Amino acid sequence: MNNVYIYQQLSDFTNAVFSKMGCSDDAATLATKVLLSADLRGIDSHGVARLAGYVRLWQAGRINTNPNIRIVHESPSTAVVDGDAGLGLVVAPYAMEVAIRKAQTAGTGWVAVRNSNHFGIAGYHAMMALAHDMTGIAMTNASALVAPTFSIERMLGTNPIAVAIPAGKQPPFVADFATTTAANGKLEILQRKNEATPVGWVQDKAGNPSTDANELKKQGALLPLGSDREHGSHKGYALGSIVDIFSAVLSGASYGPWAPPFPAYVPMPENMPGQGLGHFFGAMRTDAFRSTEEFKEHMDNWIGRFRNATPAPGHEKVLIPGDPEREMEAQRSKEGIPIVQSVVDDLKSVAEGMGIEFDAYLA
Amino acid sequence: MNNVYIYQQLSDFTNAVFSKMGCSDDAATLATKVLLSADLRGIDSHGVARLAGYVRLWQAGRINTNPNIRIVHESPSTAVVDGDAGLGLVVAPYAMEVAIRKAQTAGTGWVAVRNSNHFGIAGYHAMMALAHDMTGIAMTNASALVAPTFSIERMLGTNPIAVAIPAGKQPPFVADFATTTAANGKLEILQRKNEATPVGWVQDKAGNPSTDANELKKQGALLPLGSDREHGSHKGYALGSIVDIFSAVLSGASYGPWAPPFPAYVPMPENMPGQGLGHFFGAMRTDAFRSTEEFKEHMDNWIGRFRNATPAPGHEKVLIPGDPEREMEAQRSKEGIPIVQSVVDDLKSVAEGMGIEFDAYLA
Repeated sequence: MNNVYIYQQLSDFTNAVFSKMGCSDDAATLATKVLLSADLRGIDSHGVARLAGYVRLWQAGRINTNPNIRIVHESPSTAVVDGDAGLGLVVAPYAMEVAIRKAQTAGTGWVAVRNSNHFGIAGYHAMMALAHDMTGIAMTNASALVAPTFSIERMLGTNPIAVAIPAGKQPPFVADFATTTAANGKLEILQRKNEATPVGWVQDKAGNPSTDANELKKQGALLPLGSDREHGSHKGYALGSIVDIFSAVLSGASYGPWAPPFPAYVPMPENMPGQGLGHFFGAMRTDAFRSTEEFKEHMDNWIGRFRNATPAPGHEKVLIPGDPEREMEAQRSKEGIPIVQSVVDDLKSVAEGMGIEFDAYLA
Repeated sequence: MNNVYIYQQLSDFTNAVFSKMGCSDDAATLATKVLLSADLRGIDSHGVARLAGYVRLWQAGRINTNPNIRIVHESPSTAVVDGDAGLGLVVAPYAMEVAIRKAQTAGTGWVAVRNSNHFGIAGYHAMMALAHDMTGIAMTNASALVAPTFSIERMLGTNPIAVAIPAGKQPPFVADFATTTAANGKLEILQRKNEATPVGWVQDKAGNPSTDANELKKQGALLPLGSDREHGSHKGYALGSIVDIFSAVLSGASYGPWAPPFPAYVPMPENMPGQGLGHFFGAMRTDAFRSTEEFKEHMDNWIGRFRNATPAPGHEKVLIPGDPEREMEAQRSKEGIPIVQSVVDDLKSVAEGMGIEFDAYLA
């Protein structure tokens, strides 16, 4: 059974938790907004379900709730931001603002971030560019759970890429996806239901195909987008690698198998070659390429044409990236956000541990 | 049986063909170098095997061999280049040079191209950045052969992405891949051998899974990277769409199902919304992010660590993107380039039609 909460309830509770962690009012408000954008958009694995994880990282001393986030290197169109071990939920919007500011003067802005933590959904940050008539790009590295093609070793995170492109009358194009065949959140859903995965999502620790949704707990690995060599897993491996390099090698963060793990109980890797997690952001001003009006007209035409592509039998229509999440956001804003019992229990114990009265927020 | 030619033979012949088409000496030399880089790197579908296709496009009046390639819009870090219907093999290096020049002053350079044609392998253009200690990015849209997830209509090309990242003592990281499960060239190889494709590469015109390597000739479609929804084809569809939008909507080229077809016998789409094919290039100066020396040390560390990831049983080692092509280039530079008989026959008839003495070059 699901518990359904209205957005404001979850927001007030989450804000209280970040405040208790020592975040300033502004930081708590921003972190809450970024985190809960995942719940609104239907990416349940990345929203309030992760709040307890952030709290545990903070308790383990891995999150600085009063960080001095700053630019440490720059050129007219680039910057490197040091997140000072802050919440990625706060560091990432700061860095994306820098990218947008750079784009305002240089046409485009590109910001690599080091010394950060998990930043919520990539799509939130990419979408910040839309209000400025810019295309936004966001990516991040993450805890190593993915085996490269031909390997049994976990070397890469699910390393998502988000690209948000403005349109005119049509809603924007918003792609946001892990560079693996299936995101970790998909496994968690199957674990709860005690169901098997399709072939091609995970392999066991010896490199054999597996359908066990708990494979990651047994030293198995997620597979890169493409699943196996014959179906292009070397392309997913390359994509995940590019995200890792842009996010962490360009910035001075820790990369590959040395990326700091999200679960606080997993010890930090030894001999880390950089600081914290890394992100990479881009903003491209539309009128740095052609008139914004012209571009938007053509984006409307592009979106309209693809939405009207002939559907395959059994399918009603072709989707544009961002359609399902936008529809979910409209629905959940109105009808509330369902939270599974195990997450509610988790939040209760977070509240208890921090001296927050759970029932005052999420009764 | 394969015919093996040394690089210089193929180069002299190709140069003669481009010269006969009316290219200047410089343009013919450049187009030859770009085209044959595919044969050297083992991407046989994109090299001299396509020469007859370029000739037919030129005969159909779709290629201008004396183009006025020029910048039509710019900002400190961006430009739009109009290729004036020139060979993509010549237009693309021009545009990539503009990106590199922009990066020298602005930190990064981003160039969208309209009114171009097929540009050979994306990797060639991305790799131009390496000599400048820059990361290079290249992508292009192409003839519509790919059905979006849930569709039976061909809406996108194989829309490749190439990313070349410099290293220090290690060879550079060079990813270059179609955003489909399998590139069209893979189908052509199976056609020649009369073999079936694996499930997940193509679908028939009704949207059913197929293993017929000739499916594209029967109105079937290539599938986006991921193959089906359950294995992430919506991600491959999103990637191909991003390439299409960056290459063609940003630049003013023709996009989606309106991209001009490569085979000259296929009529041009009606009501094209832009001019010619589109490309998109990026160059990022390494020291716009951190010192080049530091970056290269960490890239060496990244590459070394991934190359030494534990291999899966039955595999000798984990590959770094670019490894197979680099090894192939070393081998073919020494031992020559094998060309299948059907391509040799094709080149013979090209020579005949243009009054070039085939035996003087490729006896």
